[in-house]
Amino acid sequence: MIDHPQSGPRSLVTRRPARGVYDRAQIHRILDEAFVCHVGFVVDGQPFVIPTSYARVDDRLYLHGSTASRMVRTLERGIEVCVTATLVDGLVLARSAFHHSVNYRSVVVFGTARLVENDQEKMSALRAFTNHVVPGRWEEVRPPTEQELQGTAVLALTIDEASAKVRTGPPIDDEEDYALAVWAGEVPLRTTAGELRPDDRLVAGVPPFDAGRLARRGALSPAAEPAVGDE
Amino acid sequence: MIDHPQSGPRSLVTRRPARGVYDRAQIHRILDEAFVCHVGFVVDGQPFVIPTSYARVDDRLYLHGSTASRMVRTLERGIEVCVTATLVDGLVLARSAFHHSVNYRSVVVFGTARLVENDQEKMSALRAFTNHVVPGRWEEVRPPTEQELQGTAVLALTIDEASAKVRTGPPIDDEEDYALAVWAGEVPLRTTAGELRPDDRLVAGVPPFDAGRLARRGALSPAAEPAVGDE
Repeated sequence: MIDHPQSGPRSLVTRRPARGVYDRAQIHRILDEAFVCHVGFVVDGQPFVIPTSYARVDDRLYLHGSTASRMVRTLERGIEVCVTATLVDGLVLARSAFHHSVNYRSVVVFGTARLVENDQEKMSALRAFTNHVVPGRWEEVRPPTEQELQGTAVLALTIDEASAKVRTGPPIDDEEDYALAVWAGEVPLRTTAGELRPDDRLVAGVPPFDAGRLARRGALSPAAEPAVGDE
Repeated sequence: MIDHPQSGPRSLVTRRPARGVYDRAQIHRILDEAFVCHVGFVVDGQPFVIPTSYARVDDRLYLHGSTASRMVRTLERGIEVCVTATLVDGLVLARSAFHHSVNYRSVVVFGTARLVENDQEKMSALRAFTNHVVPGRWEEVRPPTEQELQGTAVLALTIDEASAKVRTGPPIDDEEDYALAVWAGEVPLRTTAGELRPDDRLVAGVPPFDAGRLARRGALSPAAEPAVGDE
């Protein structure tokens, strides 16, 4: 098993350790490409798993939510969290049911979230949320008012105990199954932007949104580009 | 707040209750369209959130894994789990940073998983996993051997305490922001299949895989179809 100073026992990939990745740059790349994570926390022994958007700034992962949300009210108490982000890259069709698989990249981060109370850090985190999904968006929209800032809670989690798990490549069949006359291989999956739906109340003359901006961060491809050959 | 006999306190949607859905048919539809979920469980007070594939049969959610996996070894002890499946349908771009959002459909299921020990139920669950992703795939590939069956653990979770949360539609801006000259609206996102990568060792003459089969279950569209207008 590959080990790494930044990973502790709970972040070790125990099953199929060959798929475990502890390289910080690769962990960051996966976190930057996904934009929805699943946050796990425990209340009275009961696990909760909540989908939410996030952003990374350096070695910090920021989560946000209304100050009234159960997740925020729970996490700001400083309890343990597990944040998992997963990218599904393709289906792996094998010749036997047993060897079917999914190509994916996932990151699991463990730690304790801290409520961000400094307004400057909070504002940079909110900027990161907005620009994580659409680069440059923060600079063209109305920034948060003081009241909006107070109504939003931002939580920070240091990415120091983290691991990634990655599967790539074709199916691995049992030797005798390669003789079977059944199609096997990879079906790559990707997320594409469909036809834009402009808001009904757009000001006349506003230039259309360029969906190509989404592709710049590597995660999304506008529908105009062929959804093939993304190797 | 909408309530429903099938939901208990932990599955009530506390934040933005208008987005909460407790209708069994809609919960099932979301579970049938997604195919990767995030499973949350607790070990010594520490939450873990693991991405995994799943399938639904009637009111049961099946998870599977190697009998050696941490998740399986933990869940088979009959501890509480929280299983969340999320579909990201689009980006919601507002005129202010604060009102940016994501259109999504998610389901959260709470309960205790049971290890499936009956071989017949186990085999139907494995069939459901395979055909959940590619309809009809089970019928064309080699079925599991006795040894493969013994090496795979299947867990069943009854979908009786569950809720869905759904956001659809355009951004909701503050009244005074509608005058801002910035593009706002929805960017629909969808998962499409890219160019197939046939395995290097395919038997000569095997017919190509028809990616249109993925669209039949509603979740994926082959790249050949335009990735637009999916209303």
